[in-house]
Amino acid sequence: MKRENFAMLCDFYELTMANGYFKSGYSNRIVYFDLFFRSVPDGGGFAIAAGLSQAIEYIKDLHFDDEDIEFLKSKNTFDDEFLQYLRTFRFTGDIWAVPEGTPVFPNEPIMTIRAPAIEAQLIETYLLIAINHQSLIATKANRIVRAAEGRTVLELGSRRAQGADGAVLGARAAYIGGCNGTACVLTDQLYGVPSAGTMAHSWVQSFDSEYEAFRTFCELYPDNVVLLVDTYNTLKSGIPNAIRAFKEVLLPKGISKCAVRLDSGDIAYLSKMARKMLDEAGLTECKIVASNSLDEYLITDLLRQGAKIDIFGVGERLITSKSNPVFGGVYKLVAIQHEDGSIEPKIKISENVIKITNPHFKKIYRFYDKATGKALADELCLYDEEICKEDTHTIFDPHATWKRKTLTNFTVKPLHKEIFKNGELVYNEPYLDDIRRYCLEQVELLWDEVKRFENPHTYYVDLSQKLWDIKQQLLDKKRNNK
Amino acid sequence: MKRENFAMLCDFYELTMANGYFKSGYSNRIVYFDLFFRSVPDGGGFAIAAGLSQAIEYIKDLHFDDEDIEFLKSKNTFDDEFLQYLRTFRFTGDIWAVPEGTPVFPNEPIMTIRAPAIEAQLIETYLLIAINHQSLIATKANRIVRAAEGRTVLELGSRRAQGADGAVLGARAAYIGGCNGTACVLTDQLYGVPSAGTMAHSWVQSFDSEYEAFRTFCELYPDNVVLLVDTYNTLKSGIPNAIRAFKEVLLPKGISKCAVRLDSGDIAYLSKMARKMLDEAGLTECKIVASNSLDEYLITDLLRQGAKIDIFGVGERLITSKSNPVFGGVYKLVAIQHEDGSIEPKIKISENVIKITNPHFKKIYRFYDKATGKALADELCLYDEEICKEDTHTIFDPHATWKRKTLTNFTVKPLHKEIFKNGELVYNEPYLDDIRRYCLEQVELLWDEVKRFENPHTYYVDLSQKLWDIKQQLLDKKRNNK
Repeated sequence: MKRENFAMLCDFYELTMANGYFKSGYSNRIVYFDLFFRSVPDGGGFAIAAGLSQAIEYIKDLHFDDEDIEFLKSKNTFDDEFLQYLRTFRFTGDIWAVPEGTPVFPNEPIMTIRAPAIEAQLIETYLLIAINHQSLIATKANRIVRAAEGRTVLELGSRRAQGADGAVLGARAAYIGGCNGTACVLTDQLYGVPSAGTMAHSWVQSFDSEYEAFRTFCELYPDNVVLLVDTYNTLKSGIPNAIRAFKEVLLPKGISKCAVRLDSGDIAYLSKMARKMLDEAGLTECKIVASNSLDEYLITDLLRQGAKIDIFGVGERLITSKSNPVFGGVYKLVAIQHEDGSIEPKIKISENVIKITNPHFKKIYRFYDKATGKALADELCLYDEEICKEDTHTIFDPHATWKRKTLTNFTVKPLHKEIFKNGELVYNEPYLDDIRRYCLEQVELLWDEVKRFENPHTYYVDLSQKLWDIKQQLLDKKRNNK
Repeated sequence: MKRENFAMLCDFYELTMANGYFKSGYSNRIVYFDLFFRSVPDGGGFAIAAGLSQAIEYIKDLHFDDEDIEFLKSKNTFDDEFLQYLRTFRFTGDIWAVPEGTPVFPNEPIMTIRAPAIEAQLIETYLLIAINHQSLIATKANRIVRAAEGRTVLELGSRRAQGADGAVLGARAAYIGGCNGTACVLTDQLYGVPSAGTMAHSWVQSFDSEYEAFRTFCELYPDNVVLLVDTYNTLKSGIPNAIRAFKEVLLPKGISKCAVRLDSGDIAYLSKMARKMLDEAGLTECKIVASNSLDEYLITDLLRQGAKIDIFGVGERLITSKSNPVFGGVYKLVAIQHEDGSIEPKIKISENVIKITNPHFKKIYRFYDKATGKALADELCLYDEEICKEDTHTIFDPHATWKRKTLTNFTVKPLHKEIFKNGELVYNEPYLDDIRRYCLEQVELLWDEVKRFENPHTYYVDLSQKLWDIKQQLLDKKRNNK
């Protein structure tokens, strides 16, 4: 899909509502929306926020072209004056967001938008796509990287991605989450994620023999050889031919660094046998790359069984987050600003309790233990609340208010950065390598209990007393008078 | 992601191999690749082929820009002569493919490529992305549409898609599979998929009361009203307010067509209660739209329980094919053409038996029963084999050759269309509406046994005797001399 500008990548209802706000005289009413998610994919303890950079690009470019207006006119649904208004439409509001690479938790506003109603409504779909997609993949990548326990993890899934963006931006997100590189050349060109790769089975099949295919490759790329050894038979043919090619081509050049790749069969068994054969041939520096249906669960199991793998190549289970392919970010109205400047908090009730929103214009504070540096809890506060920098701070579970915890000896920092102010970008975007480093550092600051793959400890995301009171008042009000 | 040309959306190994072919003197050697898949998502009986149109666009545009060449040069991996060659690189080969919307089965070449080795290798990733993504979504959509048993199904999942292409091309694929429309405006603009939609919870929250929000909307869009009734309480507030707004605004205008939308709570119960309340208010023409975590399984269960739903709005479970988010298409070398024009079949053995390929340059025939019109079986043949148009034709299971079946009273047709010839597009692309109609017609021609969601009958995809013999010879050869 070729597209310079994604204004039209919206849901039709955003346009009918926008037209409705326009005709009802609400065009300029300032509203507040939060973008947040309700549960962590794969039942994990935290997610990694990502996609902000693409959201920024989108907002910067946002406009309707003549052909867009013509198309909308053809729907016979929109007012001419509204279409006229769209001709000069730009985003003029404010956006705050959690930086990419930050560990985030359910119900926290990853992004907060303050803008005139029409603007805030029209950007809903694209912001959700950008944040949902990359947060999903960054979160999955971080799980896989943690499972690999320091070994190299490469993203190889482009071909199984859900579209071109799925491949390219998915590889970007995987890098943020901690992957070491990607097979995707375009992600390298556009975002600087290191690309790597060697041969497919077709290379081996193209030659009269496997040995000849290996020998030719070693001669071409002596400094960067990974031979794919499972085209015919890994242990009877692939490994012996690889050893022969390494010995005949690389060793005479003084090169001892090389690798083989296993892509089918039982990876635990084959890797141990391959390691033994390579070591016996004196190729102790030859690394073993494994691919084929890998994810955090299989990697954990392979390592538990003593598999001899140095590099994991992870494909479809990462690039689609196969075991949980949806990051359920939502975009909800949390407040309306009246003409006198006062802010009226708004709530959405639901028969599904988990769908009840946290009202009001908010910010997030994260508390860290001074002694260990570890993250202790997050607290959602009103926009104008300052956390007391005193010695103690009491937090409580918003669903079970008798569960209270008094924090002592802590440091605290706000998580939101200001991104747009009056429609102007005011955020200095970090480099991708810095985002990745920041992500890995921040994950280090989480307790192991929160990092468990299965049934992790639930990190505290509490509401300030003021915010909790407002929420209760709104709930009571809705319950009493319809 | 903005991109005019996707030549660089390839795996790094395609470039290292291409450089290798170039330096080894294999640039002009003609090779044959098949694109096929090994199992149907969700354990279904068939898949729907889609994505060809995007593959065609890609091939037509394929070239490397100066900036691409400069980037590749910076990798210090590629030969200068090879980079020079890439400057004028175009696709010059031939492509055959199954038309979009065709029901397809495991191990059938959805696409066959005949081209010089470098060209055939470089297009691997993008072709797989295009076909894998859209075939995945079209297949899922067709399951959901069949579950809805004639009711309207709308695709509403953009916000949960895996990137912009995931949303836009996913909605295109969902339409091919049988959905009636989408919420995605850009898919309507680019591909003509009808877009629709009405209001979000934010609309209701923006007004002082739910009733006022509904009334305003009815006044704005009297001919196309769908009121979202679950912002506060569906039965106590939403439905009564909707009835009041319909009666006060629409009925006086003589409009009886309208709708309400349920988006949370127990849809079966709520839809039955809502239907009763609407009917008792005389609003028998008011339709009920349901959304929230719908897929073919939940829709089947809701209808079994007598839910009163006219229109299903399907989101994340369709746009990501959540229960099975990967269409495992692969791209494998099947033959090499020698300078004398002879074609040498190639096979890939594997320790995973399912990964053994069907060798050679092939075509697919589909047999239909003359009496019922139903599809009976497919047969993979050599490129130059003609199916005898005689009275009987015997097919056999390639994995259990004693299982034989003699077809009588049949018609037969080849499934492949010629798409590119010597690099030129020779295929007259059908309109999207025609693709969709063709898809639904072709699915009608499958037996119910093949269309079951769970544990369907396995449709016969057999090999011709000649092809089977060649495959056995290659397997024997690989077994004996390695």
